[in-house]
Amino acid sequence: MTSPVAVVGAGLVGAGWAIVFARAGHEVRIFDGAASIRHKVLGDIKGNLADLESFDLIDSAADVASRIRVCDTLADAIEGVSYVQESVFETIPVKAEITAALDEACKPDVVIGSSSSGIPASDFTEGLAGRHRCLIAHPVNPPYLVPLVELVPAPWTDATAVDFTHELMTAVGQTPIRITREVEGFVLNRLQGALLNEAWALFEEGYASAEDIDKTVSDGLGLRWSFMGPFQTIDLNAPGGVADYAARLGPLYHAVAQSRTAPKPWSEDLISDVEKERRTHLSEGGLAPRREWRDRRLMALAAHKAKAASKLGD
Amino acid sequence: MTSPVAVVGAGLVGAGWAIVFARAGHEVRIFDGAASIRHKVLGDIKGNLADLESFDLIDSAADVASRIRVCDTLADAIEGVSYVQESVFETIPVKAEITAALDEACKPDVVIGSSSSGIPASDFTEGLAGRHRCLIAHPVNPPYLVPLVELVPAPWTDATAVDFTHELMTAVGQTPIRITREVEGFVLNRLQGALLNEAWALFEEGYASAEDIDKTVSDGLGLRWSFMGPFQTIDLNAPGGVADYAARLGPLYHAVAQSRTAPKPWSEDLISDVEKERRTHLSEGGLAPRREWRDRRLMALAAHKAKAASKLGD
Repeated sequence: MTSPVAVVGAGLVGAGWAIVFARAGHEVRIFDGAASIRHKVLGDIKGNLADLESFDLIDSAADVASRIRVCDTLADAIEGVSYVQESVFETIPVKAEITAALDEACKPDVVIGSSSSGIPASDFTEGLAGRHRCLIAHPVNPPYLVPLVELVPAPWTDATAVDFTHELMTAVGQTPIRITREVEGFVLNRLQGALLNEAWALFEEGYASAEDIDKTVSDGLGLRWSFMGPFQTIDLNAPGGVADYAARLGPLYHAVAQSRTAPKPWSEDLISDVEKERRTHLSEGGLAPRREWRDRRLMALAAHKAKAASKLGD
Repeated sequence: MTSPVAVVGAGLVGAGWAIVFARAGHEVRIFDGAASIRHKVLGDIKGNLADLESFDLIDSAADVASRIRVCDTLADAIEGVSYVQESVFETIPVKAEITAALDEACKPDVVIGSSSSGIPASDFTEGLAGRHRCLIAHPVNPPYLVPLVELVPAPWTDATAVDFTHELMTAVGQTPIRITREVEGFVLNRLQGALLNEAWALFEEGYASAEDIDKTVSDGLGLRWSFMGPFQTIDLNAPGGVADYAARLGPLYHAVAQSRTAPKPWSEDLISDVEKERRTHLSEGGLAPRREWRDRRLMALAAHKAKAASKLGD
């Protein structure tokens, strides 16, 4: 399974994917319609690879980089590949145009996965001859540090295309999950949204500051969730397992849900209040360096998790 | 601030608190009404301390243990303390009885924090002469590995009692948060409940397996949340910060909320289906060893976080 892979769209997401596939030994051909992005992407990738090497997450940045080739045409990028990871700008017309071009150009057995974070494949593949080989393969940024990939088929996607992508993602060290059919926000953003909606509501009602709500996760809930999910967490949190836990705490959680049956959009005033509090902790000019800090912390965490899994089990 | 501290109730929660305070240099007097628990608790604590020492989370298990004294009477435990951490069984009558006894026995300036995870202080302190010095100080288990503590005042709790407990918890290395007034589930379980409710609903509707929903968190959302909270996460996830993020993704999250306005309790069939899937990954007999694994992973994570914070910043 180390046949060449094409990455189409060489922005932040595409560049991240190139690292994922090349790190696992695949030849990667990366293409972007914009010459300015094509000229820039390999330099950006090399910077990221140097960081990964410094955290011992890869053996050799140069080796990985040597497997990535920037292509000037779509035809060159897809030549001989078995999989295309489409990562272009996320609007329906842009997705529709590139996917039609890919479907036209790629051999029939090539699977086309889209990095779309919200638009379902049915919105831009319905009329394609090869619509059965198109699906969503939604990563988290950056994918070489956060392994989850959501696989979401359109109603007409072949099961074999999903299976192929699941196998490929597993082989390259990602963590693919199967979502059985399209749902707004897929699974990751629905779970994030549920927690965020409660967080914003608690802030709006004056129960706690954004900082204290953040601490509840970073110094509380988020610790266990960084190595086991919510179901396993509660399965271990009652003597008799998950059913025992549900019997004890189900009524509380139902009451929480019942208190939120009339959701309001996040209002401008509310957004402004959260923004004001955040800016007391981090200035606007501090956002970019803080993102670099976040990625370094993610690298350190990835190294830690690999070590902990090998020493203590996963 | 290293005056003696009393821990009343010596089950799992009380034993965990004894470690927290003794690790920070406080003399700890721990009491339980049940002789069988009094006889057992120091052995359990020493086992936990040995684990902490093996993960380099404390210098000397013997030193910490030497600061913990099991007391045979409540009067002995509270002699000369400035703070009591009440950790008895969680029912209103049990909480009411012990809190009344503590209020009667403790000098007027002693603050009484309850480990209650759900019962608010107003349910068991209203009639007490010293009700103004009572509050909830709700830990996560085990508190010596998960630092978050929710401070929740009753309507009659003095601000000075909250301030004192906030300062004490910070000084002993916990992460206290201030919840301004009582709310069902406090903050942590409301956030957890919001995510769990969505997880159970997605499972029930057949969108994904419990295992795949778990992976969405353990290999996706939970990574960033283990070192920064949800507000900081989204503040860094759009070029212009949190307001920019809210403008982009607020409508999606509002749609998620609007799809859940008729919440049902987790049904018996649903609980049984989740239980069945969990048991395919982990047998009932495997629960206890898996809890030990979880605590070892939490220890390794705590050691990692301390190192990452000191090397890369927090």
